[in-house]
Amino acid sequence: MIVKTDPKLDLVLERVIDVPRELVWECWTKAEHIPHWFVPRPWQVVEGELDVRPGGKFFTVFQSPEGQKFPNHGCYLEVTPHQRLIWTDTLHEGYRPSGKGFLPEDMPLTAILTFTPEGKGTRYNATCLHKSEEGRKKHEAMGFFEGWGTCIDQLVEYSKTMRR
Amino acid sequence: MIVKTDPKLDLVLERVIDVPRELVWECWTKAEHIPHWFVPRPWQVVEGELDVRPGGKFFTVFQSPEGQKFPNHGCYLEVTPHQRLIWTDTLHEGYRPSGKGFLPEDMPLTAILTFTPEGKGTRYNATCLHKSEEGRKKHEAMGFFEGWGTCIDQLVEYSKTMRR
Repeated sequence: MIVKTDPKLDLVLERVIDVPRELVWECWTKAEHIPHWFVPRPWQVVEGELDVRPGGKFFTVFQSPEGQKFPNHGCYLEVTPHQRLIWTDTLHEGYRPSGKGFLPEDMPLTAILTFTPEGKGTRYNATCLHKSEEGRKKHEAMGFFEGWGTCIDQLVEYSKTMRR
Repeated sequence: MIVKTDPKLDLVLERVIDVPRELVWECWTKAEHIPHWFVPRPWQVVEGELDVRPGGKFFTVFQSPEGQKFPNHGCYLEVTPHQRLIWTDTLHEGYRPSGKGFLPEDMPLTAILTFTPEGKGTRYNATCLHKSEEGRKKHEAMGFFEGWGTCIDQLVEYSKTMRR
């Protein structure tokens, strides 16, 4: 992995959670789990298609509490089972350039999820790379920390219902 | 490789050239060779930095006949030695989203170079993926076929000076 983070451009959320990283990995990589944690409730994920390999599709549809649907196209870049997942919304399936992503057009992102064992749990690191300081600030103002933090809480809660 | 081409969105240039694919690969992946063939003369490449691995930097500076310099940032996505090279200008080094690329902002591209042995030579396939039909048409109108074709001619000519 060749990733250089830059505090001016990037947002990093790191937490130690009481979930084995194999389950964290499952939550991130199996479509059946995504609706249970991936967007802060009362938003919902109403569709998901995950082809977890470099160049593969990472597609989800979010639904607002008012019922409006938001399709999101992404592409996996690096997949290191249980350890690290890198995807971007600057590309669609098969590395095709995207025009817009999960966020508005001027805030394209690459997300790097790193899962490191810590005791019986996992050090969960979510890093979002942006193209500019403006993009980072807008994403932060949109509620990156609250949003991604809530999703981690939901993942922890949901993981208790999974086989261990 | 998960790449789906679409004639409406993509440009494909395929030629059989009398150059062993190992040399074609060298031309594409070693910075010292790039100035000899990578842009149609009288344009020049005056700087090049190639870190040929997924997430690695593909940086070049083109210089127009009038002396104006154009820096180009790209990122490698897949590297299969001698066989296939995939890079995009939608990302910079380390998968950081780019704002603009080799082409104007509305024409981001992913390039897929495939080199297949054919006799003593190589079937050279260059495929450019665009996000939209408009992007493909603009790139074509800018002279994709002439430009990339001339570069192949230059590569063939230059390869004769390389050790075989």
